[in-house]
Amino acid sequence: MLNELKYKECIEACLQCMNACNVCYVSCLKEYELAMLRDCIALDRECADICAFAAQAMSRKSPYVKEICELCIKACLACAEECEKHDHEHCKQCAEACRKCAEACREMLSHV
Amino acid sequence: MLNELKYKECIEACLQCMNACNVCYVSCLKEYELAMLRDCIALDRECADICAFAAQAMSRKSPYVKEICELCIKACLACAEECEKHDHEHCKQCAEACRKCAEACREMLSHV
Amino acid sequence: MLNELKYKECIEACLQCMNACNVCYVSCLKEYELAMLRDCIALDRECADICAFAAQAMSRKSPYVKEICELCIKACLACAEECEKHDHEHCKQCAEACRKCAEACREMLSHV
Amino acid sequence: MLNELKYKECIEACLQCMNACNVCYVSCLKEYELAMLRDCIALDRECADICAFAAQAMSRKSPYVKEICELCIKACLACAEECEKHDHEHCKQCAEACRKCAEACREMLSHV
Repeated sequence: MLNELKYKECIEACLQCMNACNVCYVSCLKEYELAMLRDCIALDRECADICAFAAQAMSRKSPYVKEICELCIKACLACAEECEKHDHEHCKQCAEACRKCAEACREMLSHV
Repeated sequence: MLNELKYKECIEACLQCMNACNVCYVSCLKEYELAMLRDCIALDRECADICAFAAQAMSRKSPYVKEICELCIKACLACAEECEKHDHEHCKQCAEACRKCAEACREMLSHV
Repeated sequence: MLNELKYKECIEACLQCMNACNVCYVSCLKEYELAMLRDCIALDRECADICAFAAQAMSRKSPYVKEICELCIKACLACAEECEKHDHEHCKQCAEACRKCAEACREMLSHV
Repeated sequence: MLNELKYKECIEACLQCMNACNVCYVSCLKEYELAMLRDCIALDRECADICAFAAQAMSRKSPYVKEICELCIKACLACAEECEKHDHEHCKQCAEACRKCAEACREMLSHV
């Protein structure tokens, strides 16, 4: 496919991250100690929506890929930082996916 | 992750299909003979947006996964049918991704 | 504009509802008694995303308007029902917007 | 509602613009002289998707409102510039909505 070469890995990292953020969001809402997870829930949703938006933008070769992926890096790092405050397995996995996604966006942006 | 077991393959098929539809959409808009691709362009966008929506819905364990994946099947089949009318490589790849995605949604729905 | 006549009121109701759901979502996440609002938060997001999707679908004259607006009715009614269990002003306003949106979708669907 | 004061007008301008862009997109795809509208179709979709994203972001009080609305301004101005090259009524109405939306985003950003 057309976009395989340039965007492939970054699209995949965004979609993995969207998934991990949504899993963390759903799982947070089920935790017993909910109050400390307010920011985690909100940032999970932010990050999931922005990652999904970034993946779609790359796949349709948007002229705004640069701006959107820079935004994605910000959202991923903020979500990772918040998730790393918590011991839940879903938070750890989410933080990891966020860090990988931010890295993939940076790598992709260094080539465009 | 929480949703690995039930939705994993279906999410992946939806995201592959979203990507193929967007690649086909972008590529159609560059073709010399554009007029015959009007429906293909419109159905590509429909299908890409619905597939992205379905993937997000599954990853956040939406209570509406059934309805959304049934809609996804319709959009995939309509897009595949249209793409199969054209000889472009991107149309063929899109049709194939759409058929696979419809199949993955059906398979997933048969287990819920 | 092209879609003024048929979809105008329904698009506006969906966008009002998306906004009310997101306001309720954000406000719930700030409430002191968070635990009883788990379902409200999740259904707010569901409903906001589905309403936004429905409004976009109508505005691009999607061939799937019927299915999407039927889904929107379900999401609105479920969100309204949940919001009506709570006394917060944002929940009341959200429930009202959801009921109006479900009604506008029904009215629109009766004419197509 | 919570966001009435700060974001209200900007959300409305984004949603009006999303609608005008989608109407223009659909109408372009029906025009007889399609080839000269390739960029218009693509930029309409870009702008519609980004406006919808911006409106949702404001309504959920996203921490990324600034970045997203700056992106929205870019997308609106590029879409307006393209639409102004064409004489179709839908292109004129879309250009006007895009200019208004860019202005509303700038106005909103000057207060945050």
